[in-house]
Amino acid sequence: MNIKQYPSKLLDTAVFEFAKLPGIGQKTALRLVLHLLKKDKEEVEKFGNALIDMRNNIQFCNICHNIADAPICEICGDNTRDHTTICVVESVKEVLAIENTHLYRGVYHVLGGIISPMQGIGPADLNIDSLEKKASEGNVKEIIFALSATMEGDTTNFYIFRKINKLNLVFSTLARGVSVGDELEYIDEVTLGRSLVNRMEFKM
Amino acid sequence: MNIKQYPSKLLDTAVFEFAKLPGIGQKTALRLVLHLLKKDKEEVEKFGNALIDMRNNIQFCNICHNIADAPICEICGDNTRDHTTICVVESVKEVLAIENTHLYRGVYHVLGGIISPMQGIGPADLNIDSLEKKASEGNVKEIIFALSATMEGDTTNFYIFRKINKLNLVFSTLARGVSVGDELEYIDEVTLGRSLVNRMEFKM
Repeated sequence: MNIKQYPSKLLDTAVFEFAKLPGIGQKTALRLVLHLLKKDKEEVEKFGNALIDMRNNIQFCNICHNIADAPICEICGDNTRDHTTICVVESVKEVLAIENTHLYRGVYHVLGGIISPMQGIGPADLNIDSLEKKASEGNVKEIIFALSATMEGDTTNFYIFRKINKLNLVFSTLARGVSVGDELEYIDEVTLGRSLVNRMEFKM
Repeated sequence: MNIKQYPSKLLDTAVFEFAKLPGIGQKTALRLVLHLLKKDKEEVEKFGNALIDMRNNIQFCNICHNIADAPICEICGDNTRDHTTICVVESVKEVLAIENTHLYRGVYHVLGGIISPMQGIGPADLNIDSLEKKASEGNVKEIIFALSATMEGDTTNFYIFRKINKLNLVFSTLARGVSVGDELEYIDEVTLGRSLVNRMEFKM
């Protein structure tokens, strides 16, 4: 029997393109496409063009590689922030997360990934040279590593540390320990052990 | 503090548009948009244009209201199919599901929804008039109701039945009973009770 999966080539293409996205399967793609089909033409055009426009016109900050609408992002262009402290992060998602804490007034450096031999990502694929250059210019005092607490994150921290360490800089990393709200009996042993070894002075 | 949620207006718009889709929240939208940002410009353009193109150029079959690339869909245009049997379904999704069984050789009628007072969908919003017209033309012998086994589905079946019943037609509905593979102890009482009352002759 020669029955095509979808009754329309246009539908077929739209579902196929949607299903390429991570976490979106064939069924979800069809559901989303049929949803769009019920919307006004203008709305679908707005959606499609928003994506194309973003991809074509978005810029990356020349200083920190964060996503921006201009050659310099808002954070790097903000003179009220502390430009001597650089927080090294994997991607724009971590910049957003840290900004939402409202507790950091330094600037960032977006690596664009972390070293992961399994995924074929080496140091050359990341924005490490520009960090080294920035650090060697003499204005920077502290570099904070804020990468994931995984093997890959630790490897990347260590690589950058080895590469930039000759300069007279303070290196720090995010505190590791018990998360706020965690119940002690459910914490994994490694975290619990480390937070014992690295216990802090009790202050009121 | 005057910190915008996203560092770029373009990113903001794209995430906002994505998050309008059903089942896609703010976080998923950001993840998908950042995924697209890593793809080639051509790929993102293909994706966006596939959606716009689909919405602008897709057609609905003049006979059965199914999605099509032409004024008459492939099923209605197929002379080897039985045009005297019409299967009434809610949407194109059910057409696909039934076609995938490879057990139906009749044609379809897509209502475009079911009667649902809760969602403000009444008979006038559905393709019922064209079904009545088709049925009254004399070529049709049987109408199969293949709507969801819910209150709304039953209401819609009943409404259509009342409206078209004066014509000399056979009406049928999908068999209701125990699904293939179901274990008896987990079946709800209504289904189990009905499948006892409507028990079938045992054949080998």
